[in-house]
Amino acid sequence: MPLPTIDDIRAAAERLRPHAVRTPLLESNRLNDQLGGRVLLKLETLQRTGTFKFRGAYNKISRLSKVAHPGGVVAASSGNHAQGVADAARMMGLAAAIVMPSQAPALKIARTKALGAEVILYDRDSDDREAIFALVARERGAVMVPPFDDPEIMAGQGTVGLELMAQAEAMGALPDLVLAPCGGGGLISGVAIAVRAANPKAQVIAIEPYGFDDTTRSLASGRIESNARPSGSICDALLSPSPGKLTFAACRDQSVTGAVVSEQQVRQAMRFAFQELKLVVEPGGAVGLAALLSGTVPLNGQTVAVVLSGGNVDPGLFAEILNGS
Amino acid sequence: MPLPTIDDIRAAAERLRPHAVRTPLLESNRLNDQLGGRVLLKLETLQRTGTFKFRGAYNKISRLSKVAHPGGVVAASSGNHAQGVADAARMMGLAAAIVMPSQAPALKIARTKALGAEVILYDRDSDDREAIFALVARERGAVMVPPFDDPEIMAGQGTVGLELMAQAEAMGALPDLVLAPCGGGGLISGVAIAVRAANPKAQVIAIEPYGFDDTTRSLASGRIESNARPSGSICDALLSPSPGKLTFAACRDQSVTGAVVSEQQVRQAMRFAFQELKLVVEPGGAVGLAALLSGTVPLNGQTVAVVLSGGNVDPGLFAEILNGS
Repeated sequence: MPLPTIDDIRAAAERLRPHAVRTPLLESNRLNDQLGGRVLLKLETLQRTGTFKFRGAYNKISRLSKVAHPGGVVAASSGNHAQGVADAARMMGLAAAIVMPSQAPALKIARTKALGAEVILYDRDSDDREAIFALVARERGAVMVPPFDDPEIMAGQGTVGLELMAQAEAMGALPDLVLAPCGGGGLISGVAIAVRAANPKAQVIAIEPYGFDDTTRSLASGRIESNARPSGSICDALLSPSPGKLTFAACRDQSVTGAVVSEQQVRQAMRFAFQELKLVVEPGGAVGLAALLSGTVPLNGQTVAVVLSGGNVDPGLFAEILNGS
Repeated sequence: MPLPTIDDIRAAAERLRPHAVRTPLLESNRLNDQLGGRVLLKLETLQRTGTFKFRGAYNKISRLSKVAHPGGVVAASSGNHAQGVADAARMMGLAAAIVMPSQAPALKIARTKALGAEVILYDRDSDDREAIFALVARERGAVMVPPFDDPEIMAGQGTVGLELMAQAEAMGALPDLVLAPCGGGGLISGVAIAVRAANPKAQVIAIEPYGFDDTTRSLASGRIESNARPSGSICDALLSPSPGKLTFAACRDQSVTGAVVSEQQVRQAMRFAFQELKLVVEPGGAVGLAALLSGTVPLNGQTVAVVLSGGNVDPGLFAEILNGS
């Protein structure tokens, strides 16, 4: 399959315009002062379903129809892609079956059901997700909606980058650095294509949690690397075992690099977002902010745009993090 | 003193433009579906210092100078006005002394100090705030910055209404209803003047917490009424004993009405904001949302704009509310 182009991302933006939230790009004086540069935050936490995932799902699913695709759609997801697919399918009148790990946050499972999807649970540590996914697709004749390694998904997520560069320009800013969380790479690859079409000198950095740095290592070695474990990070949205073929190729084309943050840095970033920014950010959504606050990615007076990619966090975990435990 | 006019509010907006955040007006599909109407949220939680209070404080303090006002400024506040004044004074190079109740949230006291102000604590239940305030002003020769009953403060807060009507128009929406939290009435009076200049048919509603419904009762009786108690609500930002002379007169001119919500409804609204909107809203900032979610203000298919006025809430209290206790 070909990689998406900037024109594919522009077409996705047109498709999404009536339905997706044009999320704010917020400049934080507090962060500017603290970090010594200009910090712009892209609030995908305020997107439909609470994460950027609606963009890619809708871009793909809006081209299907109930008549041509009576089996509906099927997706495998730890939670955020699930909600994006369920919401987009419901808008198109299509049935949605979602294969989810039983270890996913309870909130994400409940919300996927609330959006009208059928949820099929599996055990992340013992079951074969791909086999279950393929079986459901075959039995129902459902269209598979992959979480990231798909040109239409990548183009949809890339609209985050298209928007943020236009919003930055309207604020008189040109980002030197763009940071986004990275699981399988759908967001970072789409964002990289869009950002570098607007500013070819911009450096795009994929931020990953410790122990799940498959993309960072792949970009350093030049070939697709995998994580040692399938689970075990607070960043439940970023646990893909390895980058996709397409997402990796697109990141390489755009000279994306990677950086890694610790769980402690993620928790601190979530507390900072609560206290200083008044924003609810889920662990996987806060890794970019964590990379800045911890100095993992130094700012050095530059202008940086950071994607806060989602806000779906269980209240119990959030309370625990606020209490510093 | 004369009431502020729409021209005063426009002039305040010009003054604030380079310094205040033009906070987003967010449409929530989730709320539209649930309430059966069109719901626009004005996110003053994302304003400098975490509340709208910076607007009024800066509008007043930016006209002072270090040379003409060597004694700086003094304000009495439970916390949010304190931070607005401290931030604005610091920007103008003026000293700021803030008289705060020792019962104010620890976070608000700490942040006021962090903004460079000197904090003078008093006991809300036993000490005479006005006497302490006047003493400090006299001793230092400081300019008093009142929390609400002042034309420049009201005009500054009114820029919230000016912005939201312009943003709504850009979204193809004309609010029938505008809801804002009400303590002493600086925000609601300024917003009412701005909103009704844009749409004279709009109904502006002051939302107050149970037991602190002085403005609601005053607007119903036609004369200034007081609260029975000085403290005892989770909504620490809304505990003024009675509306001001100017704020009351402005509200009456603009046919503002009042509505009251319970503490339970406020807690539910804060949980809703966390879970569905990914926003941190403090108790006093959430009363407008509480009025809608509880049906206290019915929507009936109309378009409503709700000001979420602030997000300065102690992490411990927020965690307790998330846990439902």
